[in-house]
Amino acid sequence: MHESNVRVRGERLLADLAALARIGATPEGGVNRPAYSDADLEARQIVRAWMRDAGLAVRVDTAGNTFGRREGADSSAPPIVIGSHTDSVPQGGRFDGALGVLAAIEVARTVRDAGIRLTHPLEVVDFQNEEGGLVGSKIVAGRFERDALALKATSGRTIEAGIALLGGDPSRLDDARRLPGSIAGYLELHIEQGRVLERAGADIGVVEGLVGIRYWEVTFTGVASHAGTTPMADRHDALVAAARLVSMVPAIVTSTPGRQVGTVGRLAVFPGGANVIPGKVVLTLELRDLDLAKVGELFSAIEREAHAIAAATGTTVSLEPTHTNDPSPTDPIIQQAVANAARTLGLRSHAMPSGAGHDAQNMATIGPAGMLFVPSVNGISHSPLERTEDHDVVNGVNVLLAAVLELDRTLS
Amino acid sequence: MHESNVRVRGERLLADLAALARIGATPEGGVNRPAYSDADLEARQIVRAWMRDAGLAVRVDTAGNTFGRREGADSSAPPIVIGSHTDSVPQGGRFDGALGVLAAIEVARTVRDAGIRLTHPLEVVDFQNEEGGLVGSKIVAGRFERDALALKATSGRTIEAGIALLGGDPSRLDDARRLPGSIAGYLELHIEQGRVLERAGADIGVVEGLVGIRYWEVTFTGVASHAGTTPMADRHDALVAAARLVSMVPAIVTSTPGRQVGTVGRLAVFPGGANVIPGKVVLTLELRDLDLAKVGELFSAIEREAHAIAAATGTTVSLEPTHTNDPSPTDPIIQQAVANAARTLGLRSHAMPSGAGHDAQNMATIGPAGMLFVPSVNGISHSPLERTEDHDVVNGVNVLLAAVLELDRTLS
Repeated sequence: MHESNVRVRGERLLADLAALARIGATPEGGVNRPAYSDADLEARQIVRAWMRDAGLAVRVDTAGNTFGRREGADSSAPPIVIGSHTDSVPQGGRFDGALGVLAAIEVARTVRDAGIRLTHPLEVVDFQNEEGGLVGSKIVAGRFERDALALKATSGRTIEAGIALLGGDPSRLDDARRLPGSIAGYLELHIEQGRVLERAGADIGVVEGLVGIRYWEVTFTGVASHAGTTPMADRHDALVAAARLVSMVPAIVTSTPGRQVGTVGRLAVFPGGANVIPGKVVLTLELRDLDLAKVGELFSAIEREAHAIAAATGTTVSLEPTHTNDPSPTDPIIQQAVANAARTLGLRSHAMPSGAGHDAQNMATIGPAGMLFVPSVNGISHSPLERTEDHDVVNGVNVLLAAVLELDRTLS
Repeated sequence: MHESNVRVRGERLLADLAALARIGATPEGGVNRPAYSDADLEARQIVRAWMRDAGLAVRVDTAGNTFGRREGADSSAPPIVIGSHTDSVPQGGRFDGALGVLAAIEVARTVRDAGIRLTHPLEVVDFQNEEGGLVGSKIVAGRFERDALALKATSGRTIEAGIALLGGDPSRLDDARRLPGSIAGYLELHIEQGRVLERAGADIGVVEGLVGIRYWEVTFTGVASHAGTTPMADRHDALVAAARLVSMVPAIVTSTPGRQVGTVGRLAVFPGGANVIPGKVVLTLELRDLDLAKVGELFSAIEREAHAIAAATGTTVSLEPTHTNDPSPTDPIIQQAVANAARTLGLRSHAMPSGAGHDAQNMATIGPAGMLFVPSVNGISHSPLERTEDHDVVNGVNVLLAAVLELDRTLS
C-alpha cells in the first residue's frame, strides 16, 4: 500500500479517547484532571502504557514530561515531535490536550502497523501542566523561571512537588532542556476552542501562528459623592466614564478588518456602595492579534477614546501596560504540509490564528513548529460540554499522519 | 426690641461648633463620632450641658435621644421641635448634624436672652444614630423594628447596647414614641451636602420634600468564554451589554426637566478573569425624585433600553426591584415660614428637594415638618473637607430663629 493511502484506525483512537476520559470523569461528562492531581498522574501512566504498546521507547524527562520515541532510518537526524498534554482545567472537557496526545500515539501505531520507515525519529510527547502556564514545554525550551517551582497549582500541589509526582526531578530541570536545532519540527493537533471552523464550514484549521497578547490596567478616577445630594450635572462618575469606554471597545477592535480580539474581563468599582457615585474604576483590557503592530494601533485608538471620555465626563484616566506575550509564528513548511494533507484527504482547510496559548509556542523557539485544529461544537471548551464530532476527530488524526509523512521528506 | 429685629449671637454659635468639633477630631480636620462610640456619648453630654446652660429642661428618652425643653405660654399647646443629630459617619465632617443641634440651642438661648415669650413649648432635639439609619427618630415615630436592636453599628456596639450607653432603655422603647398630633411642628437646619445652592447663588435652601428612592438589581447574562478563541462576532459579552446601559443612564435620567438623579454605584463582573469574556454582570440602579411617578417613567425608559441592548448583544437582562423609600413631603406652612424668614433677613432662598434622608422624614409622620439648608462649599460632605462658610452658618441660624417665631404664631 502506498503511504498516501495509509489511514489511522479511527475506532481504536475513539476508544482510547473514551477510555482516557474515564480518568477523572465528572458526572457532567467532562474530566477533572488538573496538573499534578492523582487523576493527572493516572492518565499519564495509561499514556505511557499505550506508548509502549505502540512500540515506542518511553522516558520521563526531569521536567515530568513523557516522551515515547520510535527511531528513524537516519540515526543522526533530529526527531519530529508530535503531541500535546493530558492535564485539564478544573471541570474541563475530554478533548482539550488529550486528543493531541492520543492522536500522536495513533499516528505512531499506524506508522508501525503499515511498516512505514521514516527518515527522522518520531517522538510522541505528553507535556505536563499545560493549563497552568505551559510549564512542561517552558522547561524544555529553557524559558521556565525556577522561582515558580514554589507556586501552588490548582490541584493543591506545588509545581515542584508535582514534577516529582509525575516522575521528574525538580533539582535537575536543565537536563530536560532541548536546544534550538535539536528537533526537526513540532506539530500539535488540538481542538479549536472557538467557532471559526464551524462557521467557515471547514474540517481542518491550519494555524498561521499563536497570537500575541498585550494587557493593560485602565483606571478612571472621578469624585465619589452622595448619590442623593449630587445633581447629575455636578457628577464626576468614574463608572459612567468606564462604561462608555467598555461599550466602545468592540466597535474599535472591529473597526479594521481582521481577526483581532479585545476584551475587558475584569472591572472593579470603588467605593462600590449602591448609594455612592463611583469615584474610581479599575478594569483590565487585553488585545490579541498575530501582529502586535496592529494591536498597538488599536490600543492607540482606545487610548484616544479613553482620554476623550475622561475630558467629557470630568474624570481622569490612566492606561498602564501590565504585560505582553509575543506572538509565535508557525513554520510555513509545516503550515503547507497540513494544508496539503487536508487537500489530499478531500478535506476543507481554513487558515487561522490560534487565539489561545499552546505548548507549540514554546517549541517554536527550538525548531519549526505548527498546529492543526479540528472543530469544537458550538465553540465550547474548558467545559464538560466540550465536544468534537467523531468524524472530525478521525479526519484530524489522518491529517496529522499525512503531514508527518510529508514533513519527514521535507524537513531537514 | 421688636421680635423681627432679634438676631442670634453668631460668634457664640461658631465657638460652640468649633468646641464640639474637638470631640472625635481627626488629623484631617474632620470628626469621627459614629453612633454609640465613646466620642458620640461625650458629644451628647456636652450638648446636654449646653442645653441646661440655655435654660432648657433636659431629658433623655428611652430611645437615647436628648430633648431640651422650654415651656410656652399655652400649657396645653404641643411643642415646636427643632434640632438634628450629633453622630457622624466614620471620618466625617464637623457640620453634618452638629450644626442643626447647636443652631437649635442658639435659637433657644436667643429666645431666652431676648425675653421672648413663645406660645408653644420649644424643644431642642439631638437624635441618636441618624447616620446608621435614622434610628432615634424612627423610634420616636414608631417606625423602628425591634429586630434591628441586635445589629452592630459602625462603632462596633449593637444598637441595643448603644441606646443603653446614651442613657436610653432599650426594653421600653415604646415610651419614646410620640403620637401623630403631639407636636406642633418640626424644623431642621442642615448643610445641603450638594452644590445646588452654591450654583444658584442662594443663601438658604427651602426644602420642598425629601426624595423617594427606588432601588433595582439589574443582571445581564451572556456566555462566559475564552477571550482568545472567541471571535468578536461570536460573543455574548455581559459586560459590554451592562456598560452600554450604564453609559445611557445619565442621558435617560436627564431626558426630562427636573432634579431627579439616577446612579449605578455597584457593579460586579463574573467570572472576572482578565482573559475570560464576562458571562454575567450584576449592578445596582437607584433613582430618586420627590415624585415616584416620574421615577417610574424614567425606570420604564431604562428598562426599555436594557431590553434593546440585550437583544442587540445576544444577552438577557432582568431588572428586579429591591426596595423603595417613599418621598416625604414637607409642610407648606413651614416652607413658607422659612422663605419668609430668609426674605425678611435679605437673603436669597431657593426651593429644592433633599436628595438625602434626614430625621425630618420620620418627624413628618407625626406632625408638620420642614427643613432648611445652608450651602456646602463645593458640595462636599461625609468628608473631613466638609465646610460651610461662617456667614452661611450664621444666616442659617437666624433664618431658623425667625421661622420659629413665625411658626409660633401660625402653627396650631
